[in-house]
Amino acid sequence: MIQELQKIVGETNVVTRKEQMLNYLTDESPAAIRPKPADDLALVKPANTQQISNIMQLADKHHIAVYPRGAGTGLVGGAIPTRNGIILSLERLDKVDIDTDNMMAIAEAGVTLEKLATTANASGLSFPPHPGDENAQVGGLVATNAGGSRAVRHGVMRNQVRAIEVVLPNGQVVTLGAKVHKNNVGYDLMQLLIGSEGTLGIITKATLRLYPKSEATLTLLVPFDNRRDALSVVPKILQNASTPLAVEYVDKELVERTAKHLGANWPVTTGKYYLIIIMAEADTDRVLSESLKVATICSKHTTYETFVAEPKRDQDNILRIRSNIYVILKNETLDILDITVPPAALEKVIESIEEVALAHKAYLPVYGHAADGNLHIHIMRDQEAIVDSVRDEIYRIAVKAGGVITGEHGIGKTRASKLSSFVSSEELELMRKIKAAFDPNNILNPGTKLQL
Amino acid sequence: MIQELQKIVGETNVVTRKEQMLNYLTDESPAAIRPKPADDLALVKPANTQQISNIMQLADKHHIAVYPRGAGTGLVGGAIPTRNGIILSLERLDKVDIDTDNMMAIAEAGVTLEKLATTANASGLSFPPHPGDENAQVGGLVATNAGGSRAVRHGVMRNQVRAIEVVLPNGQVVTLGAKVHKNNVGYDLMQLLIGSEGTLGIITKATLRLYPKSEATLTLLVPFDNRRDALSVVPKILQNASTPLAVEYVDKELVERTAKHLGANWPVTTGKYYLIIIMAEADTDRVLSESLKVATICSKHTTYETFVAEPKRDQDNILRIRSNIYVILKNETLDILDITVPPAALEKVIESIEEVALAHKAYLPVYGHAADGNLHIHIMRDQEAIVDSVRDEIYRIAVKAGGVITGEHGIGKTRASKLSSFVSSEELELMRKIKAAFDPNNILNPGTKLQL
Repeated sequence: MIQELQKIVGETNVVTRKEQMLNYLTDESPAAIRPKPADDLALVKPANTQQISNIMQLADKHHIAVYPRGAGTGLVGGAIPTRNGIILSLERLDKVDIDTDNMMAIAEAGVTLEKLATTANASGLSFPPHPGDENAQVGGLVATNAGGSRAVRHGVMRNQVRAIEVVLPNGQVVTLGAKVHKNNVGYDLMQLLIGSEGTLGIITKATLRLYPKSEATLTLLVPFDNRRDALSVVPKILQNASTPLAVEYVDKELVERTAKHLGANWPVTTGKYYLIIIMAEADTDRVLSESLKVATICSKHTTYETFVAEPKRDQDNILRIRSNIYVILKNETLDILDITVPPAALEKVIESIEEVALAHKAYLPVYGHAADGNLHIHIMRDQEAIVDSVRDEIYRIAVKAGGVITGEHGIGKTRASKLSSFVSSEELELMRKIKAAFDPNNILNPGTKLQL
Repeated sequence: MIQELQKIVGETNVVTRKEQMLNYLTDESPAAIRPKPADDLALVKPANTQQISNIMQLADKHHIAVYPRGAGTGLVGGAIPTRNGIILSLERLDKVDIDTDNMMAIAEAGVTLEKLATTANASGLSFPPHPGDENAQVGGLVATNAGGSRAVRHGVMRNQVRAIEVVLPNGQVVTLGAKVHKNNVGYDLMQLLIGSEGTLGIITKATLRLYPKSEATLTLLVPFDNRRDALSVVPKILQNASTPLAVEYVDKELVERTAKHLGANWPVTTGKYYLIIIMAEADTDRVLSESLKVATICSKHTTYETFVAEPKRDQDNILRIRSNIYVILKNETLDILDITVPPAALEKVIESIEEVALAHKAYLPVYGHAADGNLHIHIMRDQEAIVDSVRDEIYRIAVKAGGVITGEHGIGKTRASKLSSFVSSEELELMRKIKAAFDPNNILNPGTKLQL
């Protein structure tokens, strides 16, 4: 088998020694819940779609599990190879072309988010969504339908995708979608592949929508004395001002602790809860007037003034602190949740989570993407004995509020067992049939999303 | 069977006399290509989801074809009942609720586009997409993933849908999606249902995203001497100004003929080709400054001044003429196409269509949604002998340019035979398996989209 793989991708692109593939056996999921990789694995680094097709033909014939892999920035073990087989890294497919006239990027699966954004910028356009770690790769971003803080204005990855090239489990190569904005030919298989977490096909290339550049941004920091005020102002902003790029909710304890850890300063001392609102517009006048609108709306719900960060380093400082909340909590985290609820239900949902914390005498830090109703909740190290029940209680709170158990991170392997509790049996049955239609031998990322 | 149906929906809601169901046997497809309805049909008007579930259980048990029906505004015979069975009209499911805080509408399938937009407006919000005839119903709009002229800024129906309630062919009722903006739980069956044209399930309710009101609109009319200039300016507008609500392309002959027919006046006399650009912004200052930006961009590509319509009646006049192009051509039309290509390919594609017209000595009026690369081409009555070859040539032109054979109208019944020519056999096979997974007895809208 190894020889066959070497024939396809060349000897140097097949790695069999475990110590040389350690980075490919893990992801960013907390260690406590991270699935254990299998023992007998070959890491393969194909150079192109044809090689991937050949690998899949081989794997399908011999019923060998294949784990497609991007940058491994996922949080639910989705890319971890839990059965003996092949790790298929897309890293060498790293070409990106910008079609300026059609305002689209054609990016191979291994292109990083950073490279995509930089290349778009160099062509006078932009890719404003920021669905995760900048090392994340396009294939993974599409396969997981990544979200992130800037989905407020432009939506999640799904909204950006116009076409994908896919290698099916049997090695067939199909292009789903087209470089068009309207497409009603047959069932939309592309939409089905988006968010399928590497279980239906290997995404090798994606055509993504680009946007005009927003030349001027401001970051507003709005302090509130209580959470209810902070959260109740969000719909008012969305209803009455230009849609911000991001509307984040954090609390004083989390940001001050993070700032301290970074040796940075949280720029305001007033208030206990904050909204971080990123405004982006075509020019300075516009961003100022829209920010004023937002500050005026906020002023009706807080006694504190809105802090406006304009110099890039000040804006970056706020964002850096926000982004590092996860980093400083990470080592003490047993699990990080990403429930998503109707935005107007946030206040009630956080209250319910506090009740869970109280009942279990647990510390459950909560922050998130307020305008999306998307909360991150950490279950912390000292809660090992109750992690399962706390998680389930929070999942139930989300679903009861009309929400879902995961808005961003997906099901992966850490949540695969939860699907049957939170998805109806009718839907599960349809999902299983779809999986069987694409991957009858269950070789693609087995153990993820659907247990066949 | 009729008695069983009467038991479910009440006697008065089962119609069996053909003369009382004439409006339910047709759609807006041109008469020349319109499929012939079957002879033995019962029209059923259920009041709610439960009744629909009961009807489907009955139909599935006896393998009776069911044709879900909205307003019948489709153009490809999708809703026409071509086999003996049941016409299931959603018209009585016409309730719509607005969730202001979450900025969403919860609309039953029979709610018209007009009612949806009006109700949203009355709640201080808006539904700016305008995917078709205002009589079109929500269920049909979602089932066909309708597009329309205002998709430029907000996208097609798919982008607006957050959740749907669906009755599966076996009568099971499922809710797919949720009142959330991010959702990564399992395969996205909701996305699969959107655009499935009533072949996988009956959409009974949809949760749709709403937007803030745009208080100020302007309609710009930009005349050009040649088509190349008109079309080449479109990407420049999209790259450098606030995204318009609509960017339409028309020519002098079509608009003047339409205006004459309506007893209206096309407001400019200069130029041979026009862009109609609808700008919508939060306030008058903003819409003026953005319109000025657009006009300045256009001025580099035409010697003519941009005509700016501000009074509502002037804007309505332009739109009315644009909307009625279809109406005046309709009676002479054998087929209306809706190919969609990469926007920057429009000029070449129209040139190729002109070559087809020349070769066949045929008149092929062309107009469309320029920013979406979405063209409407009419094949006219005097071309009866060549309609099939002209259509196929235009389809091939679209696909060769990287586009698709239908961006808006869908496959329906008039194009079902084309799927195999323009979709790969691998994809068709997957689609067939998906259809079989949802509807093993092939009772739901048979003859549409996929021939099982």
